[in-house]
Amino acid sequence: MQSTEDLLYKKPSKSRWLMIGLGAGCVATFIIGILLGRYAACPDNDNKEPTYNGPLLPGVPKDLMEDGDPAISSLLINAVSRENIRTNLGWLTDKPHLAGTEENNALAERIKDEWLKSGLDHVTLTPYKVMLSHPNMSDLNYVELLNGSNATMYISNKTEPVLTPDENKPDVVPPFNAYSAPGDVYGDLVYVNYGRVEDYKFLEHNVSINMSGKIAFARYGKIFRGDKVRLAQRRGAIGVILFSDPQDVTSGDIKQVYPKDWWLPPSGAQRGTVYIGDGDPLTPGYPAIETAYRKFGDEFFIPDIPVHPIGYGIAIELMRSLSGKEVTTEWKGGMNVTYKYGDGFNTPGWKAHIHVSTSNVNRTIYNTVGIIKGHIEPDRYVIIGNHRDAWVFGALDPSSGTAIMMELARVMGELVKSGQWRPRRSIMFCSWGAEEYGLLGSTEWIEHYTKNIGSRAIAYLNVDIAVAGNFTFRALGTPMLFKPLYSAASKVTNPNITEINAGRKTVYDTWMKNSPWKGYGRPKIKLPGSGSDYAPFRDRLGVPVIDLRYAFDESLGLSTYPMYHSLYETFYLVDKIMDQGFHYHKAIGQMWIEMARDLSDSLLIPYNVTDYGTTLEDIRQTFMDRFRKQLEDKGINTTVLDSAVANFTDAIKIFKDQIPNSNLMNPFVVRRINDQLMQLDRAFLDPAGLPGRKFKRHILFAESSVDNYAGSSFPGLSDALAEIDQGYDVENQWEIVRHHYSVIIFAIQSAASTLKDVTDFMYSY
Amino acid sequence: MQSTEDLLYKKPSKSRWLMIGLGAGCVATFIIGILLGRYAACPDNDNKEPTYNGPLLPGVPKDLMEDGDPAISSLLINAVSRENIRTNLGWLTDKPHLAGTEENNALAERIKDEWLKSGLDHVTLTPYKVMLSHPNMSDLNYVELLNGSNATMYISNKTEPVLTPDENKPDVVPPFNAYSAPGDVYGDLVYVNYGRVEDYKFLEHNVSINMSGKIAFARYGKIFRGDKVRLAQRRGAIGVILFSDPQDVTSGDIKQVYPKDWWLPPSGAQRGTVYIGDGDPLTPGYPAIETAYRKFGDEFFIPDIPVHPIGYGIAIELMRSLSGKEVTTEWKGGMNVTYKYGDGFNTPGWKAHIHVSTSNVNRTIYNTVGIIKGHIEPDRYVIIGNHRDAWVFGALDPSSGTAIMMELARVMGELVKSGQWRPRRSIMFCSWGAEEYGLLGSTEWIEHYTKNIGSRAIAYLNVDIAVAGNFTFRALGTPMLFKPLYSAASKVTNPNITEINAGRKTVYDTWMKNSPWKGYGRPKIKLPGSGSDYAPFRDRLGVPVIDLRYAFDESLGLSTYPMYHSLYETFYLVDKIMDQGFHYHKAIGQMWIEMARDLSDSLLIPYNVTDYGTTLEDIRQTFMDRFRKQLEDKGINTTVLDSAVANFTDAIKIFKDQIPNSNLMNPFVVRRINDQLMQLDRAFLDPAGLPGRKFKRHILFAESSVDNYAGSSFPGLSDALAEIDQGYDVENQWEIVRHHYSVIIFAIQSAASTLKDVTDFMYSY
Repeated sequence: MQSTEDLLYKKPSKSRWLMIGLGAGCVATFIIGILLGRYAACPDNDNKEPTYNGPLLPGVPKDLMEDGDPAISSLLINAVSRENIRTNLGWLTDKPHLAGTEENNALAERIKDEWLKSGLDHVTLTPYKVMLSHPNMSDLNYVELLNGSNATMYISNKTEPVLTPDENKPDVVPPFNAYSAPGDVYGDLVYVNYGRVEDYKFLEHNVSINMSGKIAFARYGKIFRGDKVRLAQRRGAIGVILFSDPQDVTSGDIKQVYPKDWWLPPSGAQRGTVYIGDGDPLTPGYPAIETAYRKFGDEFFIPDIPVHPIGYGIAIELMRSLSGKEVTTEWKGGMNVTYKYGDGFNTPGWKAHIHVSTSNVNRTIYNTVGIIKGHIEPDRYVIIGNHRDAWVFGALDPSSGTAIMMELARVMGELVKSGQWRPRRSIMFCSWGAEEYGLLGSTEWIEHYTKNIGSRAIAYLNVDIAVAGNFTFRALGTPMLFKPLYSAASKVTNPNITEINAGRKTVYDTWMKNSPWKGYGRPKIKLPGSGSDYAPFRDRLGVPVIDLRYAFDESLGLSTYPMYHSLYETFYLVDKIMDQGFHYHKAIGQMWIEMARDLSDSLLIPYNVTDYGTTLEDIRQTFMDRFRKQLEDKGINTTVLDSAVANFTDAIKIFKDQIPNSNLMNPFVVRRINDQLMQLDRAFLDPAGLPGRKFKRHILFAESSVDNYAGSSFPGLSDALAEIDQGYDVENQWEIVRHHYSVIIFAIQSAASTLKDVTDFMYSY
Repeated sequence: MQSTEDLLYKKPSKSRWLMIGLGAGCVATFIIGILLGRYAACPDNDNKEPTYNGPLLPGVPKDLMEDGDPAISSLLINAVSRENIRTNLGWLTDKPHLAGTEENNALAERIKDEWLKSGLDHVTLTPYKVMLSHPNMSDLNYVELLNGSNATMYISNKTEPVLTPDENKPDVVPPFNAYSAPGDVYGDLVYVNYGRVEDYKFLEHNVSINMSGKIAFARYGKIFRGDKVRLAQRRGAIGVILFSDPQDVTSGDIKQVYPKDWWLPPSGAQRGTVYIGDGDPLTPGYPAIETAYRKFGDEFFIPDIPVHPIGYGIAIELMRSLSGKEVTTEWKGGMNVTYKYGDGFNTPGWKAHIHVSTSNVNRTIYNTVGIIKGHIEPDRYVIIGNHRDAWVFGALDPSSGTAIMMELARVMGELVKSGQWRPRRSIMFCSWGAEEYGLLGSTEWIEHYTKNIGSRAIAYLNVDIAVAGNFTFRALGTPMLFKPLYSAASKVTNPNITEINAGRKTVYDTWMKNSPWKGYGRPKIKLPGSGSDYAPFRDRLGVPVIDLRYAFDESLGLSTYPMYHSLYETFYLVDKIMDQGFHYHKAIGQMWIEMARDLSDSLLIPYNVTDYGTTLEDIRQTFMDRFRKQLEDKGINTTVLDSAVANFTDAIKIFKDQIPNSNLMNPFVVRRINDQLMQLDRAFLDPAGLPGRKFKRHILFAESSVDNYAGSSFPGLSDALAEIDQGYDVENQWEIVRHHYSVIIFAIQSAASTLKDVTDFMYSY
């Protein structure tokens, strides 16, 4: 597959380039030479060279029809400095920088100054006035157990204790869940495992527990915390307590925790938003600029009930106090206590109490956006992005990525300043605000500049948490970017000495060893969900996206790295424990900069259409394995989807076959080919969006998050089928299935047509 | 303004072209020449000419960076033949060709064959299965007056009498309103004038007539018949009778009618759809292909009550029988009888009866789409279109346009076949099905190929009724196309000898004389409504559109040409009465072909951004004159709109100023400029659409048709304000105003940003 793919990246033949390279005094002779099929010598071209002004028309760049200088690749890769990244991480994590705070806005300014110094051509701050959620610092949130006479038996620590000097800073915001409803609720606790649809089904059918009027006691993991809360509220729960289970955040040995190791201490808690929506909750579909109309989006979710996150130090006391049956094996976690379903306490009269004083506040957030102007196609953008806001110090999430992005800007900026290089296409650097609250900064920016970015961006390259571990490289991405990703991975030196000594010289080698993709002979790349700023680029604009990271060993079974969203994500954690010497940070930086170069400097955009077909076929199979019978039982003809996918694969083949026969010396031919490639992902955008989520417009890849139940094969459709399985509004859901099934088929046919001959793209079905 | 505009159409300087034109043996010398600012002679270039293969790279067309050969313009214009157009009209109008009938589908096939013969590169038929509406031929529709004992006193003729051999054909469909509800209703008649919002307000407040349970008796004219029906139904009417008033369809002398003259005979009636919606009513937003999901669009309107159209021959009897007060002057029409409000009859016990047997039917319709492949930018389309379906013979509506389009295909095809010419960009020819029912064919096609057309079309040039009169040329259009339109009009010879003798040699001259645009020194071009197939191109895709026609004298005060949608739109009417010699048809053909050539052959697309700014400023003023106080009374800051418009005008100036400083020898620079121009109209598209009409996505130009009350200045917003004036749901309407007002402002800012420097388009508001 890779080899046929090369057609897409075909370069003009060497001899041809030689000719063009030579002095203009001979251009004519050479053209004749080509036509006559022989070569003419040219004695006196050298002395004309200085006045030589390109092989084309007066004033046109000489390299108009060339890939960028390949030598630039190693120049960029080798220039990435571990020390600089370490220094950047230092100043980035010096203070807490929560979204909407002075500290985070000051960082936006600092980044602007740094980028201007680095030599970016333009740097702009884009402000948005959005709805955030902050706890009341003079009335902190907590969870407690009360006895019959309302005396506190156990209470959560309102703040996380300082364990190293790094945490000992002002303006630390204690654990909370953003957009929780404020208030006090009292009642029985029910342990709901991960709080998924299937967990509630089990409680209802096998344990006969009804959630109405209860407080849900759920462990973090498996699904987005916002879905845990929505599902609990939907079932009548009056509050939700989220806890980190030791199974998920410790090695089992509770002595081996931060600051000794990367594991979470008992008092650590995971902050996080419980908002389900797209961007600023008050300005759905439009940027939160001064003149915006503000009203909460009906299609969005923020809870009506209080929610609070706790550590396992207090969670174990809550679990210990529960009455009720012991849980089934899969529900048992890592706390040294008997896990029970609860719905009552061992001592009569006891009750749980959640106190939340958090409130929604309007704040101005900023994105910092810088650009290096492309010298041939400035109107095509390769976009590099990472968010800036953190729950506290954010040394991993997101400052590890920011520290690297700053270094990328320096490295590229210096080559540009020194005149050694300017990319063919423009490169943008984006530092997003308020990602943690629900991708607010990136989404508002995309809503603001939809027309510009939507018609010009060729790729969005995201790094959020650069280093979550040092076991292996991992990437999420949409198929168009698989090829540049693999090619970068095989260029970048393995940051792991042991692996190098084992003969795995590159990032690619270890990646391949640890996550082989069955049947493809290459490492696995997962489709992205909605976990970071790549989501709106894909869902709103149909821009191909990628997310890069160094990861821990999946066989550990952790849902995130243990310190995720806690106070203890400090410079100390990264510098002393997780990436001593910043080798893994450097490797991510090298992957990132090489991909950006490749995408911005190649004459033909190094997209991979074949992978698009393969991915679609995979999705089709997954989906059909799961739902074919269910659909056919309802009389839906599933073969139509099969043939739409086959048709799509044909179109890809036809498209690729015409490239080698195209004149890649003709700028309009090259631009046409690149434009068709750009159109492919965009062809899957439907303004109507997915059922019930109109801003999720990428019919194929927009994440399917409803109840995180049916997985993301065919978003919307699988959601509706999930609802049917759960017995919600069944007939209406079947209508949604029938409608959306036809939408998916049409989207695939529509995308296929954009790849066909631009003067013969119509066919009847 | 025109002169500064020229910058946009700046050609490389003569001397530069000379140089490039000369033999390749001297290319280098000349480049040096340019650089040194002097010229070199070149003795031996001629003998090298034959092997010269373009100024650029091997195999690249010589004219890559040139406008097309200007000589082609007159070749095309002069080749348009009156005789061919007449012949085409003959076979096109030989049989009735109602949408969804065998005759009309056979014409689709015939047109395909003709176009292939003409030399188009590809011709495709695109079928769609849509919901149409046909009367029951064995139980024809009628309107009657019954007396107390249910005896018929007056009854409408069920068919229109044959007056010339041309009408004496099988398969003529009698008068009906498409999508009327079937059934029989009986009751009192109320004369409602034109059936506009203001007419009902007058009836309610000044005559104290309530429509509930009554039959509305409305004259055609002023607003779309579908709105007349919707407004009547909304007010409780149980049926609607639509009639053609002599004031609108005769000269006053009822002897001077067809076949003697172009005026409508007493028995003639105007057919027409009363559907309000976008495309096939059953597949909103998606093409009506085999796999489509079918369900009536909630946002669309078809009546729940019977509707039937009649001629003035019977209308006068209905009016004569009415009791009630005599109407106010403005309500009086051209029938020689006292106009009364009715709501009762002179003779007690009488009642009106409407009998409708029309039913909705699913039929397959076809578009025929042909293409001439562009040789440099095949992926840019200039689209020529006209519908094919007619209510009966459709000699004017639409076959006058079809007859010309066939001739355009022949003329262009022959130049291409003979190798004399191939356009720079592709040219498409579209023959639409089922336009009369609600733009079904064009809308389904646009829904089908949204991605291809949306990203590649640069203009849609529509001709529906080519000749509605011979008084003057008239055009509807969006501002980007004003310039090529004016330039074509000044190239095409005046078809009117008298005008030529009066010194007005061109179409432009007479047009300017008859419809000067105050303050602009050029003829008036109106913004298009939703009356023909240009609407979906503008509303769904943001493609600049134009509609060409020869028109009658507006001072006659006719709402259409008298024979509109009647049986009598025959070849005889055109050939013997309305355009003897087909001079006016030819002139439209010449305008059409010249605009298509200009748009497809110019290096820089001959768009006119300045006119966009002027038009927006006009709209702003109209709107503010009407609504500023109303908005400010509600505390809405109207200056924000003013400054958005000013900002837009600045962006246009900045954009134009950079063009002369751009290197128009660089293909990527030219493509970038053209792409930005293409983006401008598209930047006004909002996927959410107008309030309540999600498929009307062009925030600025999508027609505002709700109740045809507030006019189309700022669609959606003016509608909501109209509803407020009428006291409907006032608070909710104010929320819509506030929201949509901010949407409009943002759309203008967003459009402005697409014109800004592609690497510096961000600014804060």
